[in-house]
Amino acid sequence: MNIGGRHYRSIWRDDARVFVIDQTKLPFGFETRALSTLDAAAVAIKDMIVRGAPLIGATGAYGLALALRQDASDAGLAHAYETLLATRPTAVNLRWALDRLREKLLPAAPSGRADLAFAEADAIADEDAGCCEAIGEHGAALLTEAAARKDGAPLNILTHCNAGWLATVDWGTALAPIYKAARGGVSLHVWVDETRPRNQGASLTAYELAGENVPHTVIVDNAGGHLMQHGLVDLCIVGTDRTTRTGDVCNKIGTYLKALAAHDNGVPFYVALPSSTLDWRLANGVTEIPIEERDESEVTFISGSDDRGRTARIRVTPEGTRAKNFGFDVTPARYVTALVTERGVCAASEPALRQMFPEATR
Amino acid sequence: MNIGGRHYRSIWRDDARVFVIDQTKLPFGFETRALSTLDAAAVAIKDMIVRGAPLIGATGAYGLALALRQDASDAGLAHAYETLLATRPTAVNLRWALDRLREKLLPAAPSGRADLAFAEADAIADEDAGCCEAIGEHGAALLTEAAARKDGAPLNILTHCNAGWLATVDWGTALAPIYKAARGGVSLHVWVDETRPRNQGASLTAYELAGENVPHTVIVDNAGGHLMQHGLVDLCIVGTDRTTRTGDVCNKIGTYLKALAAHDNGVPFYVALPSSTLDWRLANGVTEIPIEERDESEVTFISGSDDRGRTARIRVTPEGTRAKNFGFDVTPARYVTALVTERGVCAASEPALRQMFPEATR
Repeated sequence: MNIGGRHYRSIWRDDARVFVIDQTKLPFGFETRALSTLDAAAVAIKDMIVRGAPLIGATGAYGLALALRQDASDAGLAHAYETLLATRPTAVNLRWALDRLREKLLPAAPSGRADLAFAEADAIADEDAGCCEAIGEHGAALLTEAAARKDGAPLNILTHCNAGWLATVDWGTALAPIYKAARGGVSLHVWVDETRPRNQGASLTAYELAGENVPHTVIVDNAGGHLMQHGLVDLCIVGTDRTTRTGDVCNKIGTYLKALAAHDNGVPFYVALPSSTLDWRLANGVTEIPIEERDESEVTFISGSDDRGRTARIRVTPEGTRAKNFGFDVTPARYVTALVTERGVCAASEPALRQMFPEATR
Repeated sequence: MNIGGRHYRSIWRDDARVFVIDQTKLPFGFETRALSTLDAAAVAIKDMIVRGAPLIGATGAYGLALALRQDASDAGLAHAYETLLATRPTAVNLRWALDRLREKLLPAAPSGRADLAFAEADAIADEDAGCCEAIGEHGAALLTEAAARKDGAPLNILTHCNAGWLATVDWGTALAPIYKAARGGVSLHVWVDETRPRNQGASLTAYELAGENVPHTVIVDNAGGHLMQHGLVDLCIVGTDRTTRTGDVCNKIGTYLKALAAHDNGVPFYVALPSSTLDWRLANGVTEIPIEERDESEVTFISGSDDRGRTARIRVTPEGTRAKNFGFDVTPARYVTALVTERGVCAASEPALRQMFPEATR
């Protein structure tokens, strides 16, 4: 997608290195990072230089390929697999990508593994971009239909966190339908939840939408319920970091609260996902999905831009105040109007998901 | 209540001036402000140097008294009334306090009005402190009962915004029961919603609880739903800026989302209020209560303490990003387990409120 009129993917490579956009620097600075080693890739995921379930998956795949350049033995493969898998616990795309590579690489001779891994990582990245574009097409149809009922007034869409192209390889999940619909001439406006504690909405989503000239307004995470009570939200659409086979959706902390408000006010609540986000092993999201707990300093400190345009970090709680920082929550399937996947739109239920993905085995 | 071991009220006076704690400076600095004129009182309310529905009411009363020192004519009284009433639209205590003074003052000779007004403002302040202490007693009984079911584990209470002594004259509304219970030896722990955009939870509530040695943990506003899903919240208690006769509760933006999560997870949701917060004229909170919209810079900028301990303000959105900033939302009575008033605990319904306050006429 576009940054200053130039097309970018969120991850790309040359023969020696993998490149990513340092998302901790956005929206105040645009910096890319070159990753040359397993450790650099693992740190990039853990420190959220890259984030977003699909992009974490692609970065994991490239990280495994980088590792095999240094040690392509079975032990080297196992070590790289475990190191990358341990970086972040909630998104399942990481495991999905790593499993896919390992399955392909284990039967191969170590001498050829690195090249094979890069080729497979490239395939994962390309497929993700393709999946997200397909999600965009299917979702745009929903948005176009909803917009037709607005008599020319802009369609008001609420989203939480960043499920845009920066969270994937290209296009995004929740934002892909918005980009497709906007490019197709649908009049729309996006309410952007700021998404504390890391403010991925206020920073990344606002940045993305500005880059694509999509009208948007940032709100605090507390505001969505009020907007829905007053008819100011026509539909919600969010991404997911892990989705159970029953349609429970694990996404950035606070998503569940917006789903409750949508339900209470009859506002459709859509979740957009590539199938790599589905965890067919799980039936109950609330009890079975591990929820990452991150450092409390993400709550007690906030970063932004000071009056001279420099990045600054300030403390927002009294000295010594403790905080807890859970990264995700689970929205039970009963609050999800529909899932938007690369194959189309379906109910958030096991029968509907099995019908959409009949090849799924677990 | 206590700051550094010394007892404070949030508002007090000598013969010439009214004093308040500048709450925009907390928790990083403790400064008091002397108010000598109508305009100073109006600015103190509008700029949230003082905030919290009961304290706004008391400050309004003292502001009217200050105004009458300068012009005690009917026209002067009318001007002061209108000026103060226009400062903030949502809390009804302001109107309640101003109406109470006007009714007392209009029949009096102008020469005696200022003294009468100060005496009545003192009475309002004293009554508020008394009401809040009574709310504390009634609410503490609820907390003590809930704690008894915890087998010695701390009772986990979630609160939103600041409804502590800083929001009232003394004791607080939602926090008064916590203070009373904690002083009575009940083992408890408070989850403090940071309460964006102005962070009254992360700043004022955390500051108050630390001053009273009550164990607490700050969380982002997004986290409460997840905590409730996992049994980490035993009950919620919040304040209210205006309560309809039917029990709809208007409180800081985001309260409604927590009430929905409490309802979805069977967690009791209590609202604590002095009766000055009841607006007997209104039957439907969502459609009838005016919701204050504040400046968007409260969303796009955040204040805190920099690495040298100085107060600093940083921008958290891309340059040029627009924001909307609604100050309050309405929680329908059906999501409120009970109201805790100075006369006792009652259902959030018109019959229960009328039984508790039979003298109410509108």
